[in-house]
Amino acid sequence: MRAITIAEPGGPDALVLADVPDPVPGAGEVLVEVVASAVNRADVLQRQGFYEPPPDASRYPGLECSGRIAALGPGVTGWAVGDEVCALLVGGGYAEKVAVPVGQLLPVPKGVDLVTAAALPEVTATVWSNVFQIAHLRPAETLLVHGGSSGIGTMAIQLGKAVGARVVTTAGSAQKLAACRDLGADVLVNYREQDFVAELGDHGADVILDVVGAAYLARNVDALAVNGRLVIIGMQGGAKAELNLGRLLAKRGAVIATTLRARPTEEKAAIIAAVREHVWPLIEAGTVRPVVDRTLPLASAPEAHRLMESSEHIGKILLTI
Amino acid sequence: MRAITIAEPGGPDALVLADVPDPVPGAGEVLVEVVASAVNRADVLQRQGFYEPPPDASRYPGLECSGRIAALGPGVTGWAVGDEVCALLVGGGYAEKVAVPVGQLLPVPKGVDLVTAAALPEVTATVWSNVFQIAHLRPAETLLVHGGSSGIGTMAIQLGKAVGARVVTTAGSAQKLAACRDLGADVLVNYREQDFVAELGDHGADVILDVVGAAYLARNVDALAVNGRLVIIGMQGGAKAELNLGRLLAKRGAVIATTLRARPTEEKAAIIAAVREHVWPLIEAGTVRPVVDRTLPLASAPEAHRLMESSEHIGKILLTI
Repeated sequence: MRAITIAEPGGPDALVLADVPDPVPGAGEVLVEVVASAVNRADVLQRQGFYEPPPDASRYPGLECSGRIAALGPGVTGWAVGDEVCALLVGGGYAEKVAVPVGQLLPVPKGVDLVTAAALPEVTATVWSNVFQIAHLRPAETLLVHGGSSGIGTMAIQLGKAVGARVVTTAGSAQKLAACRDLGADVLVNYREQDFVAELGDHGADVILDVVGAAYLARNVDALAVNGRLVIIGMQGGAKAELNLGRLLAKRGAVIATTLRARPTEEKAAIIAAVREHVWPLIEAGTVRPVVDRTLPLASAPEAHRLMESSEHIGKILLTI
Repeated sequence: MRAITIAEPGGPDALVLADVPDPVPGAGEVLVEVVASAVNRADVLQRQGFYEPPPDASRYPGLECSGRIAALGPGVTGWAVGDEVCALLVGGGYAEKVAVPVGQLLPVPKGVDLVTAAALPEVTATVWSNVFQIAHLRPAETLLVHGGSSGIGTMAIQLGKAVGARVVTTAGSAQKLAACRDLGADVLVNYREQDFVAELGDHGADVILDVVGAAYLARNVDALAVNGRLVIIGMQGGAKAELNLGRLLAKRGAVIATTLRARPTEEKAAIIAAVREHVWPLIEAGTVRPVVDRTLPLASAPEAHRLMESSEHIGKILLTI
């Protein structure tokens, strides 16, 4: 098959389409013929050599895909060859075929086309696991979403609103903030011009979903409500920062840092099962929708990465096979 | 009545026994005739002027007591004058009488004498709320208790063992560690001679109960197991320290800082109800016991504080009225 490979870590042109051996589905896995994949920040880090795939993972980038089941590995039940699916991957989505543990498969939601379904697995699993399973966002609480126009941001805004939370979001331009408003965000903060701590008001944020890390740590703690939960899932602003435990203690707050990719297969399966139970009905009802910035062919993966690094996109960047 | 007052913040001799007006129980409160109180680190901070009581709280120190109900405020049901109780207080325990919201009252457990019952409310409420309600310690997990010979430490070791956890504890002398071993601790770490991260072994600690704060933050993160929860309830080693979010993210860990005293009355009532349901049966069965270092008369509060500051005690220091 053909896949995007990374012979030497580096810039976007390190992504090279090449002929490679087909993957073989192991026990409890299926082989998916990929129709589309999507670009994640983690792919950029992997391309740069900063994010080594877990030991058993595919060496090729790509943390999600949509497609059709082409073969079943030993012991697989409940799925059939030809089923249209989307899937959370530990890697290997930028390819014509990928082997997937069955616990990471999702049916394509009704009303979503097969290509667009590739926009869903990472953002739904990331938002559901972090905002709901870990931070326990509840109705009428305030959710602060940093980077509301990112793929994760667009899903976090919609899921926050869907459960009845007040959603405050940051982004870096009026155009991005308008997109966030269209998705339901209640309070829009241009982080280049405004202070999100001030814009939140006295109550603060009960839950913060953050991808910035160190550069925002102190202000995120300031922004927390009493009993607030700060969940850090990215470190675009660095990894090390001073934490004022006195301020955190005064909020009775929690700072949680997590990642989806490194979780063991059984934890991913539990997250995917919860996404199917809680998020899929919202998508099928049209309450929550995938947001796609644009779709490029697989061979244009370097261009897709340049776009991701420019941060000019709104929503997901898809790659079609 | 007589109470220990703090006219001017300062050393132990700032604690002065004086005649003051009796407290009056408000709606939903009872007046308790105090038989014993207990010394907490927070009392020392309050005496030094570093821990202002919440606005509505008694100005006198003392966060727990035992005694007999002397009067019922308006609207109180379920308790009677003469009932022997112990109670979690927002202040005012170093006194002959104190007004207590009914949600913070507990019956004296069977098998515990009335004076010794004063050793129970703070440690049971602190450990239950932090280790179980917040950090969700589960059977077969590893609990690291810093300062295992403190009042809180002695209760955390026992409750950790009671639910089937493996308990690792730190203390500063062989004598203190022997006391921890007698309470059931599985691994004893003399922090003056040993590195608790190394002693924990590869798995690390699923839950850490910490009173040191800044000075231990980096090593506590290093000590966390994957999915580990670090709960900081004291800052004896300072408030500000660098947090390496990359290391925390690799553990998918949580850093939580909390305090009991500042919680609203309804949250305290929920904690006390859980303590009565889950901890009181363990005490009445003899599985968990109060650990009392010594008992001094109220007028010796300065001596009791000197002892607390020396850290030479094992378990609780009680004051009898």
